[in-house]
Amino acid sequence: MSNTDNRTAQVDETGKLRHLLRLDGLSREFITALLDRAESFQTRVGEPPARDDALKGRTVANLFFEPSTRTRASFELAAKRLSADVLNLDVNMSSRTKGESLLDTIYTLQAMQVDIFVVRDASAGIPAYITQNAEPHVSVLNAGESDISHPTQGLLDLMTIREAKGTLDGLTVTVIGDIAHSRVARSISEGLRIMGNNELRLVSPTGLNGDSELYPGAQLTSDLDGAIEGADVVMALRIQKERIKEKSSLMTSMEYHQQFGLTEERLALAKPDAIVMHPGPMNRDVEISGPVADGPQSVVTQQVHNGVAVRMAVLAAVNEARST
Amino acid sequence: MSNTDNRTAQVDETGKLRHLLRLDGLSREFITALLDRAESFQTRVGEPPARDDALKGRTVANLFFEPSTRTRASFELAAKRLSADVLNLDVNMSSRTKGESLLDTIYTLQAMQVDIFVVRDASAGIPAYITQNAEPHVSVLNAGESDISHPTQGLLDLMTIREAKGTLDGLTVTVIGDIAHSRVARSISEGLRIMGNNELRLVSPTGLNGDSELYPGAQLTSDLDGAIEGADVVMALRIQKERIKEKSSLMTSMEYHQQFGLTEERLALAKPDAIVMHPGPMNRDVEISGPVADGPQSVVTQQVHNGVAVRMAVLAAVNEARST
Amino acid sequence: MSNTDNRTAQVDETGKLRHLLRLDGLSREFITALLDRAESFQTRVGEPPARDDALKGRTVANLFFEPSTRTRASFELAAKRLSADVLNLDVNMSSRTKGESLLDTIYTLQAMQVDIFVVRDASAGIPAYITQNAEPHVSVLNAGESDISHPTQGLLDLMTIREAKGTLDGLTVTVIGDIAHSRVARSISEGLRIMGNNELRLVSPTGLNGDSELYPGAQLTSDLDGAIEGADVVMALRIQKERIKEKSSLMTSMEYHQQFGLTEERLALAKPDAIVMHPGPMNRDVEISGPVADGPQSVVTQQVHNGVAVRMAVLAAVNEARST
Repeated sequence: MSNTDNRTAQVDETGKLRHLLRLDGLSREFITALLDRAESFQTRVGEPPARDDALKGRTVANLFFEPSTRTRASFELAAKRLSADVLNLDVNMSSRTKGESLLDTIYTLQAMQVDIFVVRDASAGIPAYITQNAEPHVSVLNAGESDISHPTQGLLDLMTIREAKGTLDGLTVTVIGDIAHSRVARSISEGLRIMGNNELRLVSPTGLNGDSELYPGAQLTSDLDGAIEGADVVMALRIQKERIKEKSSLMTSMEYHQQFGLTEERLALAKPDAIVMHPGPMNRDVEISGPVADGPQSVVTQQVHNGVAVRMAVLAAVNEARST
Repeated sequence: MSNTDNRTAQVDETGKLRHLLRLDGLSREFITALLDRAESFQTRVGEPPARDDALKGRTVANLFFEPSTRTRASFELAAKRLSADVLNLDVNMSSRTKGESLLDTIYTLQAMQVDIFVVRDASAGIPAYITQNAEPHVSVLNAGESDISHPTQGLLDLMTIREAKGTLDGLTVTVIGDIAHSRVARSISEGLRIMGNNELRLVSPTGLNGDSELYPGAQLTSDLDGAIEGADVVMALRIQKERIKEKSSLMTSMEYHQQFGLTEERLALAKPDAIVMHPGPMNRDVEISGPVADGPQSVVTQQVHNGVAVRMAVLAAVNEARST
Repeated sequence: MSNTDNRTAQVDETGKLRHLLRLDGLSREFITALLDRAESFQTRVGEPPARDDALKGRTVANLFFEPSTRTRASFELAAKRLSADVLNLDVNMSSRTKGESLLDTIYTLQAMQVDIFVVRDASAGIPAYITQNAEPHVSVLNAGESDISHPTQGLLDLMTIREAKGTLDGLTVTVIGDIAHSRVARSISEGLRIMGNNELRLVSPTGLNGDSELYPGAQLTSDLDGAIEGADVVMALRIQKERIKEKSSLMTSMEYHQQFGLTEERLALAKPDAIVMHPGPMNRDVEISGPVADGPQSVVTQQVHNGVAVRMAVLAAVNEARST
C-alpha cells in the first residue's frame, strides 16, 4: 500500500476513523458504532445539549467554499460542545486559482495547528485532494462535495431512520426529486446498502434522474405513486437549481408540485407508519406540501437535531484516531 | 388565555422573563430588578469585566437581518461573559422569501438546541412572529425592530439615567431628532412612563415628528430651545436616512446642525447638571457638536458600557425562566 | 514627556510592552525576551498547541479594515489559546468617513471593555492614531499597516531565523521583490538592525526598489545573483499589485520569474545551509519556484507556525503591562 493510500484511507490499520469523505468503505459495524456514539450525545430539545471535553485544546476549522448557514452552524455547535476551538473561514476563491490557494490555505492552517478541517465545496474531489496533501495528523471531514457526497448527512439520515424504525434492514426507502444533482441521495444510498438488505426507489422527473451505475440495486423511476406505495421512508429533495445549466427546461414550481410534490394523498400510499424526511431547506408547496412538511409523519426537525449529535460523534472519533 | 398568548407573553405566570420584545407590559418593580441585576454585572472600564457561568452549556444565536456591528458585539460579549456558546448568523434574505426562510431557520436552530435568539430586523413584527412559532423553551430577545422597539437600548438608557440622577421619577427628558423613525425614542418613552412621573419632550423637524398616539403624555414640538429648557436629560438622535424614502426633502447636514444640532449654547438652557445621551453612532457637527459629544455632560460611552451589563442581565433572566 | 507620549509609548516606564506598533524603539534584550517567551509557547505541529489562562476574562478585538484570512486566523488562535474572549470585526469603511467612524468604533469597543485591539489597515498611521485616542488601559497591536510596519511578522521572521541559525548576529539576509511596497521588508529590516551586526541586501526590479533612507545600512540593488551570493537567509516577496497604481509598467509573471524568481539555480549561490523564507501567500513560479518553495531549505510553514507563538507572546506581554 502506498503512502498516499495510507494517508487518504478513511479508516486506519487499527480500525479508527481518520477522515470522513464518503460512507462507502465503512463497515456495517463501524457505522453502527458511530450511530450508537451519536445517540450518547443526544439530549432532548429544550434540555441542555450534551457536552464533552473530548476536543479541549484541539482546533477545528470550518472551511466553506460554498456558503451554508445550516451545515456550518451544525458543525460549529458540535465542535464547541466538545470544547474545541473553532475557526470559521468563508473562502471565496475563483476556480482558476483555487488549486494553489487551497493548498496554501491548508499548509498555513495546519502550521497553526489546526487539527480537523471541515470542508464544503461545490466542486468534486477537494476533500480527498486535501487528505493527499495535508500532514498525517490532520483529519478531513466532508461537509458537502458537489453532487457526490455528504456523508454526515447520510449518517444523520440513517440515525433518524433507525430511531423511528428500530432497524436499518429490510426497509423500503423512496427518494423523490432531483436525483441527478443530489449528494444527499448518493450518501443515503451508500448507507442503506452497507447497513442491510434495503430497497431503494429513486423517483425523478425526466432529465433529473440518477445514473444507474451510481445506484447499484436501486430502482430508478418516474412513477411517483408506484414508488411511494408501501414505503417505510419517503424523502423529498429540492431541485438544485444552482447546479442546473439549462434552466429553461425546468418546470414551474406549481407544475413540479402537481407532478412530483409529496402531498398527503400521495403519502397515504406509503405504509401507515412511514416517516417523511427532507434534508432542508424545504420549499413548501413545491417538493413537499405544508401539511406533510409539518405533519405527524415528518421527522425533518429530528434530522437536524440528530445532525449535531452525528457530527459530535464523527469529530470525537477522528480525534481519537489522531491521539493514538 | 390561549396557548399563543402564553407562548408570546414576555413574563410567565411565575413572574419570570420569557422574551423581551418591548418594555410596555413590564412592571416598575420588574424593570428595577433588571437594572439592579445589570448593576451587579458592572465593573469599571479597564477592570476585568464581570463573568458568570449562568449560561454555561447554553447556546445563544445572534440572528441579524439588519447589519449592526455595535449591538451585535454588545450581545456577543454579554453572552460570552456568561459562558454561553455563541453563534453569529448574518442573514441576507429578500423580503419576498423571508417568511418561510425565517421559520425554516428558526426550526433548524432550535432543533440544534439553540436556547436564545437575539433578533434584529428592519421590518416590523419579526420577533413576535418568532415567539409565536418557536418551541416553548426558546427565548427571543429583540435587538432592534424597524422603527418600533429596541428594548435593551431602552433599558440601558434607563440604567444610565438612574446612575446619573439617582432616580427615574420626576425627570424632564428631551429627545431631539428623527422621532418619526426612531425605535430608540419609542423604547425610552415606554420606559419612562413605566418608571415614574416623568416629562418627555420630543423635538423634531417638520416631517420627522412622532405620532402623538404612540407617545401618550409626551410633548411633541419643533421648538428646540423651549424643549431643552430645564431638562435633566437631553438625548440627540441621528436622522435614519435609510428609513426615509423622499430624501430630497432632507435638510443638508449643515442646515440640520444649525436648526436642530445639540450645541453648547443650546445645552446651556438645560439644567446645569443635565446629562447628554446618544444611542450612537454619533454624527459630530450634525445632530450633536463635537464639544458636546465629548464634553463633561456626555454619558454616551457610559451608555455603551451599561449596554453589555443590561444584556447580561436580560440573558441571565430569560435563562432562569427557561430553567424552571 | 507629554501625556500623549506616555500613552503612545510602546514600552512603559517599568519596561513593559504597552502597544506594538513597530520594532524600532524596542531593545535587543526586549526582543530576545519576547522570542524566548514565544518559544515557550511552541509545541510541535501535530501535538496539542500550547494553552494558557493568561488572558482569561480579557477581550481581544480583531479590527481588520483590510481583509486577511491568514493573519486574522493567527491572532484569533493565539488569543483563544490564551483563553481570551475574541471579537472579530471585519469593517468596511470608506476612507472619507474612516476618521470619525474609527474613533466611534474604538470608543464603543473600549466602553464594552475590550482590552486589546488587533488592527490591520491599508492606510498609514491608524494604529498610532488609536493609541493616541484610546483609554490608557487599552493596548493596540499592529497587524499590518500600509507599506510601513508589520511587527509581529518581523518578530516571527526573527524567531524563525534564530531557530535555524542559532543567532541573530553576523548574518547576511537577502530580501527579493517589491521592496517599495513591503511592510514585511520594513519590519525585518528594523529587527535585524536591533538584534545584531547583520548585512541586509534588498533586491528589486527597477521601479519597485526601496527608499534608501528607510533602510539605513542596507544594500539596495537590482543584481539578484550578487545579492544571493553567500547569504544565510533568502526571503522572497510577492508583488503587491493592490498597492501599485500604474499596472501597465508591471512585468508579466513569466518575465518576473525569469528575472527575479527564486529558483534552485539561484538559491545555489547562497550558503549551502541558507534558509528560504516567504511571508505568504506564495505565488509559485512567479517570485519563487515550486521546488524551492517546498524544498528542504524552505522554512515557510515554520514561519506560519512561529507566528501563532509570537502573537501569544505579544498578547501575554501587553496583558501583563495592563495588569500592573
